[in-house]
Amino acid sequence: MKLFRFGSPIDTGAVTEKPLKYLQNEEIHGFRQKKTKNFLILRYHLEKDDVVMGLGEQMGGVNKRGRKYITYNTDIPEHTPDKLSLYGSHPFIVIKGRSNSGIFIDYPGEIIFDIGFTDIDILEITITSHDFDVYLWQNIRWQDIFTSYLELTGGVYIPPKWAFGYQQCRWSYPDANSVTEIASKFRQLGIPCDAIYLDIDYMQDYKVFTINKERFPDFGKFVKKLADDGFHLIPIIDPGVKIESGYHVYEEGKKNKYFCTDAKGINFEATVWPGLTHLPDFSNEAVRTWWGNLYEEFIKLGIEGFWNDMNEPAIFYTNYQKAEVYKNLKEAADNDKIEDIDLIALQWQIRNFHNSREDYQSIYQHPDNSETICHDQIHNLYGAQMALAFSDHVQKHYPEKRFLIFSRSSYSGSQRYAGIWYGDNKSWWQHLEMSIKMLINCNLVGYFYSGADIGGFGDHCQAELLLRWLQLGVFSPLFRNHSAIHTRHQELWEFDKKTLNISRNIIRLRYSLLPWLYSQFLEYASMNVPLIQPLFWSFEEERCQQIEDEFIYGTSLLIAPVYQPNATGRNVYLPDCNWLLWQVRSWEERKMQVLTAGDHYLDCPLDRQLVFIKENSLIALQEPEDHVDQIKPDTLFITGLVTSTASIKVLADQGKYPAFAGMAVLEINVECFGNDYNIKIKTVNRELLQWQNLIFELYNEQGKLIVKHRKLL
Amino acid sequence: MKLFRFGSPIDTGAVTEKPLKYLQNEEIHGFRQKKTKNFLILRYHLEKDDVVMGLGEQMGGVNKRGRKYITYNTDIPEHTPDKLSLYGSHPFIVIKGRSNSGIFIDYPGEIIFDIGFTDIDILEITITSHDFDVYLWQNIRWQDIFTSYLELTGGVYIPPKWAFGYQQCRWSYPDANSVTEIASKFRQLGIPCDAIYLDIDYMQDYKVFTINKERFPDFGKFVKKLADDGFHLIPIIDPGVKIESGYHVYEEGKKNKYFCTDAKGINFEATVWPGLTHLPDFSNEAVRTWWGNLYEEFIKLGIEGFWNDMNEPAIFYTNYQKAEVYKNLKEAADNDKIEDIDLIALQWQIRNFHNSREDYQSIYQHPDNSETICHDQIHNLYGAQMALAFSDHVQKHYPEKRFLIFSRSSYSGSQRYAGIWYGDNKSWWQHLEMSIKMLINCNLVGYFYSGADIGGFGDHCQAELLLRWLQLGVFSPLFRNHSAIHTRHQELWEFDKKTLNISRNIIRLRYSLLPWLYSQFLEYASMNVPLIQPLFWSFEEERCQQIEDEFIYGTSLLIAPVYQPNATGRNVYLPDCNWLLWQVRSWEERKMQVLTAGDHYLDCPLDRQLVFIKENSLIALQEPEDHVDQIKPDTLFITGLVTSTASIKVLADQGKYPAFAGMAVLEINVECFGNDYNIKIKTVNRELLQWQNLIFELYNEQGKLIVKHRKLL
Repeated sequence: MKLFRFGSPIDTGAVTEKPLKYLQNEEIHGFRQKKTKNFLILRYHLEKDDVVMGLGEQMGGVNKRGRKYITYNTDIPEHTPDKLSLYGSHPFIVIKGRSNSGIFIDYPGEIIFDIGFTDIDILEITITSHDFDVYLWQNIRWQDIFTSYLELTGGVYIPPKWAFGYQQCRWSYPDANSVTEIASKFRQLGIPCDAIYLDIDYMQDYKVFTINKERFPDFGKFVKKLADDGFHLIPIIDPGVKIESGYHVYEEGKKNKYFCTDAKGINFEATVWPGLTHLPDFSNEAVRTWWGNLYEEFIKLGIEGFWNDMNEPAIFYTNYQKAEVYKNLKEAADNDKIEDIDLIALQWQIRNFHNSREDYQSIYQHPDNSETICHDQIHNLYGAQMALAFSDHVQKHYPEKRFLIFSRSSYSGSQRYAGIWYGDNKSWWQHLEMSIKMLINCNLVGYFYSGADIGGFGDHCQAELLLRWLQLGVFSPLFRNHSAIHTRHQELWEFDKKTLNISRNIIRLRYSLLPWLYSQFLEYASMNVPLIQPLFWSFEEERCQQIEDEFIYGTSLLIAPVYQPNATGRNVYLPDCNWLLWQVRSWEERKMQVLTAGDHYLDCPLDRQLVFIKENSLIALQEPEDHVDQIKPDTLFITGLVTSTASIKVLADQGKYPAFAGMAVLEINVECFGNDYNIKIKTVNRELLQWQNLIFELYNEQGKLIVKHRKLL
Repeated sequence: MKLFRFGSPIDTGAVTEKPLKYLQNEEIHGFRQKKTKNFLILRYHLEKDDVVMGLGEQMGGVNKRGRKYITYNTDIPEHTPDKLSLYGSHPFIVIKGRSNSGIFIDYPGEIIFDIGFTDIDILEITITSHDFDVYLWQNIRWQDIFTSYLELTGGVYIPPKWAFGYQQCRWSYPDANSVTEIASKFRQLGIPCDAIYLDIDYMQDYKVFTINKERFPDFGKFVKKLADDGFHLIPIIDPGVKIESGYHVYEEGKKNKYFCTDAKGINFEATVWPGLTHLPDFSNEAVRTWWGNLYEEFIKLGIEGFWNDMNEPAIFYTNYQKAEVYKNLKEAADNDKIEDIDLIALQWQIRNFHNSREDYQSIYQHPDNSETICHDQIHNLYGAQMALAFSDHVQKHYPEKRFLIFSRSSYSGSQRYAGIWYGDNKSWWQHLEMSIKMLINCNLVGYFYSGADIGGFGDHCQAELLLRWLQLGVFSPLFRNHSAIHTRHQELWEFDKKTLNISRNIIRLRYSLLPWLYSQFLEYASMNVPLIQPLFWSFEEERCQQIEDEFIYGTSLLIAPVYQPNATGRNVYLPDCNWLLWQVRSWEERKMQVLTAGDHYLDCPLDRQLVFIKENSLIALQEPEDHVDQIKPDTLFITGLVTSTASIKVLADQGKYPAFAGMAVLEINVECFGNDYNIKIKTVNRELLQWQNLIFELYNEQGKLIVKHRKLL
């Protein structure tokens, strides 16, 4: 890897260990370079079969060719295919082809990637600055470029284990009673669940770090009561601080000059949920320290997880935009003879005054060890640095404790200290399909702990869509059902009884697999290898390059979600070897069959999902319970198709930070001898492993099941 | 079929021959009926495997289960999955299942179809009126219900043969020179083309039935010059008549009271492209006669085709909406202390004042033989009756001539006198996929002559998307490339040379197949059987029910378009029998192979498309020429996989109205004897058949090609 430095870039924090040597203003091998007044343009000639990957949270597929993309974090409520930016920016791409290359442009302002849109064979990157770092990888395996990028940017965030449980959200459960009701419903109905969310309405007048005392009379007691029943309560945190005299966050921020300013140094004002607000300047360490400390108000009441929202930062409008609109309103209203066309123009203005680029260009920030800088140039850092404030705080004050933290906005590097969700999707089948690709794309840049709002946030969900999305969700590390105000409720019991029963089975499947899914998460994080991979990550067959609606989870699993309405089956391609097909209806029914490599059309009615276990690999499951901390079944089931030798490594950690300290390991090797199996078991830190019994359900090539029992000594 | 009459419905014109007997206010067998103050609600219990089809131009798939739909014609620029109405209303559904049923609700106002959205097993139809007819089919083959519906509503519109050629459109080719340039480009580059379109900018100040004389100095000469080169010029026609003193259309309409009014009888005013307009009252025959006659201004200059746009009718806004907005603007502007929330409310108001339901409820129409009626109740007839005005005019004055006419808005029954296009789609892959389903759905309700804007209307197209869409377009009766102002140009030469060459091959394929595609159109129209069918139309295998991304064209062809970016192949399911696969690169390369029934993954690079010919059926092709009227090659190629006997019927009509009068027929029977074939040829009206030579390219089960020459006597 080589680092090319252009101009005098600020430190974005994306990279944890800078290379010692850098090349200043040099030509980047393979890229034609053109400097204009404000931009640097890089051009790369794509071969016909080159595949371009990367960019993390973006529209389009896994192969990014044929589209334009812009890194400029945007609060965007309609994820239609014309959108060029979403909430996060990860300006890193890998070109897989005759010569593999990777390029990471560490610049947190706008970069335009034209990947064969204008000209089918040209990749053109327009960096709207002359100050940035470029990291270049060449002449290595393309997969290793991803790993090297993750090492460079500090690895992968690992949340606490309970955060792998099912989570229920809605904008909003308005008060303590409604949350309690939701919680009891889960327990009554026997549906496992680990977390319930508070959206913006828990706050007093949308003031961040406040709680409405009428609707949540004794918050600490309430949190404890939920915790006793196995639920974590996760409040939303927005960055905009309401301008209100006497409000402690506002007063402290004002007094200490913690807010972003305008060009003249006056605190910048933006309207968001609370009305007029100031935006904390997270580029400054003192501000981050202050902000991180504010979470204490919740932590001391027992809160262990947060979601940071609106941190692109979203701006409904500013006084400037409002004044412009008012000026035009006044002109329009004063003039009876106004041309109709002006009304249309006014309509467009008033439609587009959200999240205005002009506003972002009017904000100034004051980072540590650096000149005052226009926000526009570090725009994509805002959410990442907000999450960093929390992360630094808890690492300092709770060095052994792991918190759940995930964010809407992100930037390269923030994957080492926070997860993300994919923002305001809709209850559309197309968005279920998109979330498959998002899982792959976000995992490729290290956001293992990420996921879409299951069932869709905006628009009205229906039973079949929810169930298909839950089925995908079993393999999404962040497994959260979330819906917007004014849309149909999509808690699992809001539909018919059949839907409820199917959803219970799906969620119980997740919990039965949870120790194994979590173990794989830890293992892949420790290797800096994407947990969720496209098929072509490990299977070189040309065919695999085409497949973006199946994915590999970790070592053993191939997942092929159904994402079409009224479907009772789907086409599945299985690469390379035999696979054990589990058409799951419930975790208890583990009747499996052997499929050969190649194309298959497989039945998959609404109450089933397709899970494939790779030949000569194993997975583990156990009886699901109501919530993660409760899970202490003493039997672990190990299953797989073993035709020669297979091994499995189940990791169980102490739930402390960092994740890998003092980890327990259960390592099993299975060797096939004719019709029998030889099983070898090794443990590390046996006392941390809960299981007493191991039950092996092993299939041979003919699909014959052999069951073996072992005690774990 | 039974007719149930509720209240006193007006005659919508949907049905050409009313059944003699009708049941008044009776229970409809199989439907639970609930009458509320304003609505009649019909509920039907769906079995698990029931499939609901129909509704014509609507969102969703071929199987309509799991969604809501509303029949209320709407000018809608964003075809996202949340949309409940598009431009046309075809309130006819067929339930295929344990007991087949069909129901057509002849009511041209709002009807809400909840097809298993709210409750997965319930079909609920809410008719917002007490005056309507219901036609019910039960206890017959479900396919026959579609045919019976088409017979009831008068059959299928058949355009002139040249309208099957490739057509080029853009909003807008601004003047005669630019059109001439486009035309020469086609001829220079050797790309067949039959029509070029004029969008709104050809008019003087958007005044319907006027021509801007500066930009089109001698329109008649210009039309003739294009015609000499084989191009038809197709002007757009909008219903809104600009309020401008001295403008003949306005003056005539005003004098004769031809316009829709408000409740007080004052001509209704609506702002559309020309500014303030009146809307002709097409429910009245005198108005239709007048309007039909206005097309004469173009017909006498040589124009033979028109597209009717904006006829839902689209309303940008009305004086009422404008006054409401101004009132609020004024309040907002006058009051400095206005709450921010009002600005958001104002924003929503100003965003949503297009096509307001309130406006439609304020329009009144004056149909023949009927009371004055609120437009809202006959809203869905507006575009259909506008097209009827043209159709009645030309049938009366040019009884033997066929014109091209297609419309954006439509209603059940208008499929007998006009085509449709699918309105303002976008250059999105999802919309390419949607257009496959639209072709099937619109054909099911008789809009054979229909199609999407190829390449996408809104948003920016790219080369790969255009090519894949053109490939589908070969089998879309309306085969038109159209793009919007401010989007990237998508004429075929606007990309790279490779794209140009591939597109030329695709369009030449269309022209080589054109006599056969046209013949099939005639044949299926004569039978009132959908030309484009879902696979399960004729293949009963359960699997076929799942397939909505392949379709059958007529008798012999199965089409499986590639509709994913960066794809070099796709999965295809072939039902029942063997199929001859043609991986078409160009019409000249006719190397085919035999595939068995079942699942296949097939390569399909960008320069190829997948065409399948059914075992023991035949297709016909000939050398393509520059435009349809020029096509007079004397050799017809007949190809197919013949393992027992196969026949083909090629119809060639006189190009006159009606299509079937004095038709020529070439009927061929091929019988397989071991390794040889016995060919029998019959003709009707031989003098109308152009071909002298027939070349048979026959494949046997082993894929061996046997070529046979015959003279056509």
